[in-house]
Amino acid sequence: MKNTGYSRFITEMQVRPDDIDMNQHVHNSRYFDYVLAARYEQMERCYAFPMEEFLKHRYGWVVRKAIVDYKRPLGLGDWFSVETGIVTLENKGCVVSFSIKSKKTGKECCEGEFHYTMINTETGRSEVIPEWIIERYSI
Amino acid sequence: MKNTGYSRFITEMQVRPDDIDMNQHVHNSRYFDYVLAARYEQMERCYAFPMEEFLKHRYGWVVRKAIVDYKRPLGLGDWFSVETGIVTLENKGCVVSFSIKSKKTGKECCEGEFHYTMINTETGRSEVIPEWIIERYSI
Amino acid sequence: MKNTGYSRFITEMQVRPDDIDMNQHVHNSRYFDYVLAARYEQMERCYAFPMEEFLKHRYGWVVRKAIVDYKRPLGLGDWFSVETGIVTLENKGCVVSFSIKSKKTGKECCEGEFHYTMINTETGRSEVIPEWIIERYSI
Amino acid sequence: MKNTGYSRFITEMQVRPDDIDMNQHVHNSRYFDYVLAARYEQMERCYAFPMEEFLKHRYGWVVRKAIVDYKRPLGLGDWFSVETGIVTLENKGCVVSFSIKSKKTGKECCEGEFHYTMINTETGRSEVIPEWIIERYSI
Repeated sequence: MKNTGYSRFITEMQVRPDDIDMNQHVHNSRYFDYVLAARYEQMERCYAFPMEEFLKHRYGWVVRKAIVDYKRPLGLGDWFSVETGIVTLENKGCVVSFSIKSKKTGKECCEGEFHYTMINTETGRSEVIPEWIIERYSI
Repeated sequence: MKNTGYSRFITEMQVRPDDIDMNQHVHNSRYFDYVLAARYEQMERCYAFPMEEFLKHRYGWVVRKAIVDYKRPLGLGDWFSVETGIVTLENKGCVVSFSIKSKKTGKECCEGEFHYTMINTETGRSEVIPEWIIERYSI
Repeated sequence: MKNTGYSRFITEMQVRPDDIDMNQHVHNSRYFDYVLAARYEQMERCYAFPMEEFLKHRYGWVVRKAIVDYKRPLGLGDWFSVETGIVTLENKGCVVSFSIKSKKTGKECCEGEFHYTMINTETGRSEVIPEWIIERYSI
Repeated sequence: MKNTGYSRFITEMQVRPDDIDMNQHVHNSRYFDYVLAARYEQMERCYAFPMEEFLKHRYGWVVRKAIVDYKRPLGLGDWFSVETGIVTLENKGCVVSFSIKSKKTGKECCEGEFHYTMINTETGRSEVIPEWIIERYSI
């Protein structure tokens, strides 16, 4: 992971039985949900900028692109860490990279990137990110 | 909750963003998943009888009946407790009751019962619960 | 199923791979989602009263109680029918019963009841069901 | 979509209410599930090579990489088509591209690629794809 100047944060979670697929592994699509849950928790705890406050200003993030590299599966009851951090923060959006590691083995299970665009939740249209929001994320 | 002679156990969990439905509340069906996750965790921590060991003996539990009373919704990011305990433990199955409470308000969000039958995972058929398993659960 | 004077309707659906659990069967909680999907489709097609119109009047249904009897599992790719119908329609709510059958075997996989309360979506409080809505459902 | 020499197939599906997220759109992660469901259906109907037969030979596909470009959201009750097709089919794996379109508007909602590796389900290890399987997919 190259140094981007932005902090990276870690959230720990556990696999729920309903995340397991017919092959006894976490369903591929659930890693999306894990990253979303980690970002949500980190917005409050790490950025001191809970999603609720963000929504009050009628701003929202929508995913424009997702890239996930799967390396090793997680299984029933496994604890894992979700590390995320901003890679680039620009005019109308940002790129967040993530890495999910098994607590038991310390090995990486998957990594990837989400590209977000900031929208006005009333119009549904993308909007230039105001300076004060860029500052809140620039830690 | 009437005293049944069986212990009751509590697991704490947090709502994940993907649990939220279009009305901003936890989707009705997710409470099933929460109880399943709590029982799974309690089998290992409280009964010292992890599901993996249970499965190694080729036993499994299948749900025969579920009853859920919904009282108050949970929302995004809420922490909650899942209290569960055996109500009756009989020949071929057991009844487990549960109560889910919001950590923030202390109020009950839903409660209900799951009726389980023990099966042999090789035949898929119900089986009389052996004495040593009844003992493991009789705490 | 006793005759209640209300019509019963059938929606056909197919199991999605992400509905399958670690035991190769449809996850218990997904039957909730199937009934919800069937009712949604039937509101439009059978009652000529799409959920969107209902919501425009600021009405909503919330589940107060759910009872599900599981009989036989559904598996990967199975087609099934969801039959639903009103059992009772009263002052502030209704009871809807359902039966899910496998298309392949014709046998019942599960059946049960949902108890709904009508709410005002602005206040979140229950409300007396107006006569014109009772009429729309009384077919 | 460039011509790869491989056929492309279309499966039609409908959004289920439990696919909808707190913003009234299909949850980002559900598009994964839609593509998986479409491929499963197409293996049987279009390739005459149902997943069950594939599994009987102790072969399985695991996702190594997923790339999704989101363009427009799908909403409650929307019908959509999932077009998929092989892009490359090599030694140990294949790349499948997909495009999801709204039936109502005809517009593309998202597109992307899944990179699969073929594994032996007994060892969990990747394996060279035998000639007869390459032939089954080469339509």
